[in-house]
Amino acid sequence: MKTVTQSLAEFVVTSDGSGLPAWSLHEAKRTLLNMLAISLSASRSGDAGIMLNWAREERAGEHASVIGAKLKTSPGNAALVNGFLCHLQDYDDTHFPTILHPTAPVWPAVLALSERQGASGLDALGAFVLGAETACRVALSVHPWHYDQGWHITGTAGIFGAAAGAGRVNGLDEEQMTNALGVAGTLAAGVREVFGSHGKPLHAGHAAENGLRAATWSATGFTGSDDIIGGRRGFWAVASPDGHSEEALLGDLGERWELQMNGLKPFANGIVSHPIQQAVIELRNEHGLQPEQIRSIEARVHPLVIELMNRAEPRVGLEGKFSFQHCAAAALVDGAGHDAQFADSKVQDPVIAAVRARVSATIDRDVREDEVYLKISLNDGRTLENHVEHAVGSPSNPMSDEALQKKYRELAGEALPETQVEELLHAVWTLDEAPDVSRVTQLMQAS
Amino acid sequence: MKTVTQSLAEFVVTSDGSGLPAWSLHEAKRTLLNMLAISLSASRSGDAGIMLNWAREERAGEHASVIGAKLKTSPGNAALVNGFLCHLQDYDDTHFPTILHPTAPVWPAVLALSERQGASGLDALGAFVLGAETACRVALSVHPWHYDQGWHITGTAGIFGAAAGAGRVNGLDEEQMTNALGVAGTLAAGVREVFGSHGKPLHAGHAAENGLRAATWSATGFTGSDDIIGGRRGFWAVASPDGHSEEALLGDLGERWELQMNGLKPFANGIVSHPIQQAVIELRNEHGLQPEQIRSIEARVHPLVIELMNRAEPRVGLEGKFSFQHCAAAALVDGAGHDAQFADSKVQDPVIAAVRARVSATIDRDVREDEVYLKISLNDGRTLENHVEHAVGSPSNPMSDEALQKKYRELAGEALPETQVEELLHAVWTLDEAPDVSRVTQLMQAS
Repeated sequence: MKTVTQSLAEFVVTSDGSGLPAWSLHEAKRTLLNMLAISLSASRSGDAGIMLNWAREERAGEHASVIGAKLKTSPGNAALVNGFLCHLQDYDDTHFPTILHPTAPVWPAVLALSERQGASGLDALGAFVLGAETACRVALSVHPWHYDQGWHITGTAGIFGAAAGAGRVNGLDEEQMTNALGVAGTLAAGVREVFGSHGKPLHAGHAAENGLRAATWSATGFTGSDDIIGGRRGFWAVASPDGHSEEALLGDLGERWELQMNGLKPFANGIVSHPIQQAVIELRNEHGLQPEQIRSIEARVHPLVIELMNRAEPRVGLEGKFSFQHCAAAALVDGAGHDAQFADSKVQDPVIAAVRARVSATIDRDVREDEVYLKISLNDGRTLENHVEHAVGSPSNPMSDEALQKKYRELAGEALPETQVEELLHAVWTLDEAPDVSRVTQLMQAS
Repeated sequence: MKTVTQSLAEFVVTSDGSGLPAWSLHEAKRTLLNMLAISLSASRSGDAGIMLNWAREERAGEHASVIGAKLKTSPGNAALVNGFLCHLQDYDDTHFPTILHPTAPVWPAVLALSERQGASGLDALGAFVLGAETACRVALSVHPWHYDQGWHITGTAGIFGAAAGAGRVNGLDEEQMTNALGVAGTLAAGVREVFGSHGKPLHAGHAAENGLRAATWSATGFTGSDDIIGGRRGFWAVASPDGHSEEALLGDLGERWELQMNGLKPFANGIVSHPIQQAVIELRNEHGLQPEQIRSIEARVHPLVIELMNRAEPRVGLEGKFSFQHCAAAALVDGAGHDAQFADSKVQDPVIAAVRARVSATIDRDVREDEVYLKISLNDGRTLENHVEHAVGSPSNPMSDEALQKKYRELAGEALPETQVEELLHAVWTLDEAPDVSRVTQLMQAS
């Protein structure tokens, strides 16, 4: 009789990589592209500099590449830094049922080890799919009790996914995979107390690094536990004492895919104002709107918009992320809601501030969370209206490849020359045909 | 009003290193010597080889030394490997009120960073004292609820101590120290499910490494939380929901020292058979006993000896650690109870097996846990008796410096030539006068 951890390990090691659903491999490319976009943008910041300087100081063997830097380091270090970068702007993907962010812990582990081992592009994509599925399954098995207790599920459940994905790259057998999950699971860490600090993105990096290490060590005889998830003093018992679900972990493996419940974010701020931003940008682009034309921007919104994001006069960037007025104004002026739109300088920009003063919202209890009715009145007397039924970015209305490419080009362009941006884009879209991941890992570096 | 974490940080950063109690600095030397002894012995094993090979493969900058190897690596990597080695034989020190093992997470972090930064010997000793105190205080504040829930307290509370100790070496101010504790605390990890596997010693290494990193990053602007211990979603709330004690954490700081409740182990097995082993060795040495002289070894013992360690015919080394019969027989034949006495070959050795068959114990409910009445009958008709009132190794009857040196010489001698053993011993005893830790870190390396 297998333990639940052994059953999960069996699924991960016996799944036929080339037999994974085509949509899942495409989704793996999309999440990779999204990771590269936001990590390249994040790599320009001073926050990133702390980790990049540290990694340089380590002077480890040059086996794996760091995104957005001219830096190769050990696979573990690369996974740590890239995981940190990927989650730094809170702009990564979200598994909606659990609000786990699967890419930040898993892809950096898979990519760094694939680069080190010379794994094929297709193997790397498949390893991500199975790693992400593992992270989402472990997360779902303890949701909502675990998160409610204060755990940051991206760190804690994410490390299982990192081990599973890296373990696939290393070709672990079932026993080794069980041990890798055991070693990773006992290092599961991250509490919500540090939200708002560097600790939050660090959780993703820590998960990526230690999942990778667990898969590396267990390939050479390192032991963990037979049942880190379901054991008497394992993950369920210790880190989710209020409840867990074996069905969520193991039900319909290979048929039900939690990765299908993953969504990419179109804006770098909290989700509740996304419908407003989308509605503004659609009208802006359709009518070529300029800031000086705007008399008012009025929105009918779900109550949460007022509850969470009503801040008429934000003073610094972080406050801008919690101001629907700023989100709308920046959307009108810049046509975007990247992290750049939440720099202090943007929040203090007089043009944006002038528009921001003209933004208002009223609660309509019939409006859903992902919905908005928007009206823009212009100084020439015209009135433009837009109704967003379902904002882009949820599993039921995923971001299109085209929109993702736009996001990617804008963010990658902050760090890379245009030709490199396009070459990297091509390398990602054709990764399944590549003999290894070296094109991607080479092109994602910046000076 | 300071948070509890800020109050702890204040104590750590404002304590006058040269004003620490003299006994505490001496105890810091003793724990260091004990760590070197057991880590040098452990470094010869195949288990150690997995980590040593991995660390070599990392090829990181040569800034900090690994015990028992010809290897320098990054401070973080060195802390990881040395922490792993120190806990590998379950032969390290114990804080009796919490069964936290303070040295394995703290000293490797302090030593590696001291080597990197050129800290003085006295500063390193003081940093250990304050780091160990931090680990013990955090542990005591969640005991027994936290351990009972399944957490391995050496990993979880240990990481706070590693950050505090390393933070002292880095000269952090109170705010930086609070952040270091925040970053370390959110990475606190380790569950008891992996006991019996490599995962257990890994917890100590992980704590050492990440405490060191937290202290390194926070020195350059990395942020954590204002109150990782007492915050709404901090360590107490998330990892010890059944209870905690602020008094245990902060009461009488600088006056009551938890480090005084720390003990060194004379034998590498479970504590309940220690009185028997001590009694046997004392008679053996006093009378020059040889295996062939023994007719019987009879002990009157506390009931736990029978309950936990009654195994007349162990077949492999690990079973020998849970056999009072083997412990007594190996003590008679070898005069010791190091890890070497629990090798498979020792358990299967015919001379030891012959003595083992003559060992018996009877329960006496008036005998305390740390007590034994022992009788050895010889083939020449003589009977030798010994009564150990309090076995060596508890805070009330600490191991003498002489006994510690004997343990050190025997174990260090497994890895180092005799002259180097003596030079290293001298370097530790005079560390408070040394301009830096380089003598120790150089001499603890082996080829």
